[in-house]
Amino acid sequence: MRTEEQNLAIQYLSDTAKAVEAKFDEYLPSPTIEPCRLHEAMRYSMFAGGKRLRPALVKAAFELFGGQGESVWYAMSALEMLHTFSLIHDDLPCVDNDDMRRGKPTAHKKFGEATAVLGGDALCILAFELMAKTGNAKAIEILARQLGTFGMIGGEMRDVECEGKTVTLDVVDYIHYHKTAALIEASLCIGAELAGASAKDIEIIQKFGKSIGLAFQVVDDILDIVSTTEQLGKDAGSDEERGKATYPSVIGLEASRERAMALYREAIAELDALEGNTEVLRSIAAFIVTRVN
Amino acid sequence: MRTEEQNLAIQYLSDTAKAVEAKFDEYLPSPTIEPCRLHEAMRYSMFAGGKRLRPALVKAAFELFGGQGESVWYAMSALEMLHTFSLIHDDLPCVDNDDMRRGKPTAHKKFGEATAVLGGDALCILAFELMAKTGNAKAIEILARQLGTFGMIGGEMRDVECEGKTVTLDVVDYIHYHKTAALIEASLCIGAELAGASAKDIEIIQKFGKSIGLAFQVVDDILDIVSTTEQLGKDAGSDEERGKATYPSVIGLEASRERAMALYREAIAELDALEGNTEVLRSIAAFIVTRVN
Repeated sequence: MRTEEQNLAIQYLSDTAKAVEAKFDEYLPSPTIEPCRLHEAMRYSMFAGGKRLRPALVKAAFELFGGQGESVWYAMSALEMLHTFSLIHDDLPCVDNDDMRRGKPTAHKKFGEATAVLGGDALCILAFELMAKTGNAKAIEILARQLGTFGMIGGEMRDVECEGKTVTLDVVDYIHYHKTAALIEASLCIGAELAGASAKDIEIIQKFGKSIGLAFQVVDDILDIVSTTEQLGKDAGSDEERGKATYPSVIGLEASRERAMALYREAIAELDALEGNTEVLRSIAAFIVTRVN
Repeated sequence: MRTEEQNLAIQYLSDTAKAVEAKFDEYLPSPTIEPCRLHEAMRYSMFAGGKRLRPALVKAAFELFGGQGESVWYAMSALEMLHTFSLIHDDLPCVDNDDMRRGKPTAHKKFGEATAVLGGDALCILAFELMAKTGNAKAIEILARQLGTFGMIGGEMRDVECEGKTVTLDVVDYIHYHKTAALIEASLCIGAELAGASAKDIEIIQKFGKSIGLAFQVVDDILDIVSTTEQLGKDAGSDEERGKATYPSVIGLEASRERAMALYREAIAELDALEGNTEVLRSIAAFIVTRVN
């Protein structure tokens, strides 16, 4: 992959992050209004950093299919809120029990467990409120399906259940697809749906999303092994310590790297069938497999 | 209140419960499909009993305003799922720490905390998926607003924060309105919205909902004191033990009874401004203030 391609992705992600963070500030309730502490906790987790990958994918798909208007910002913000909701609940002592996230104390460490549970709930609900403002019920249905037990929540559940167990590659595929790829797929499908893309085009972008989503999680597994805690902003090596179902633990590090590259190639091959300018999505795919945190 | 009025409410609630429970069975994923244990937990909590008051209110408002079609069943099921989601998260050790609910072990006691957190999340998400199937984005927006930090979640947060503290009547009003009345209001507004009611009629039904919702919670507070654990299906006297902000604790038992009756009268007076047959709603209001569990 060429450096200019990666630079395009970095620029697009950074521009989108800046713009969408201004929207978070607009949409998130003020910490000076009751329940103050809950509003403070929601903002703390939403402004703890992150690549804002999901909003960028919503926007890139929306633009690719010629979307017009401002409603896409509701969806972009909603996708990041849902991602943050899942992180807050995943970090809870009774789930993954993580103390650090993006170099900062996790929500329950900072605000207590009850506030973390309710703060996650509140972000999930606010995300649906924002989605409703787009007026597109079909987009809400797609999103809920990708989030629920046949999507992200299903992946989280199986991830917890399989901790410390010897698992097959099929199980790792199930977990990775559901816990990570489903929401990445959803981001692209919702951007496309809001732009009025055809069912055929939405199917293509969904396949692209599935491949880059899986690649994203394989790279995550690899980084957990090869990176330092400082680079990651969370505890490195924690997957192995907990006996998490990961690619490297099942097929080894080298085969995992090859798998990530194969998924990248599958993803960009999907884009050949589309007519619009797919440059941004290609660059983000490249960024996903070459990232170091 | 006449006995025949209460009988009408009991019959309507019982008929609706039977019909809507068949829909739950249809909409809830099968426990034979992964994540099996999560699906089992969702069904356990949804089928643990309950009056199914919120679905009945959705249906009664829908019928009052001449609603036609089957989409109301999605909304009825969604409202009960959201109520159940709130109970599961409220019962968690880090929130209210309740072991029993409706005479059975709470979700986290039966399935563990991680499954309870994710099962609650999954019911919330499935509720929005079902709401999306109505195709009415406005109804989803109303619902999310009533559920979020300016509604139910806000009430739960303040309820937890105020435990063990001396509070004013204003604070008790805030907590009761938000944690209980907001979702009861939402049930009525969504039934009305799906039926195509006017903004003016929705405003009236919302005021009715606010009054019966508050009355419902005042009666709940009273029953926690005067009933036995067996009658309630949950620990009687637990509010006082925890120093919960309740009406009896702030204004006493007799004044609380008077307050419930005043709210009942305010509620039914609202209905006088409506043209349709308000018999069912009047009977449910009477049932709410005379119930014993």
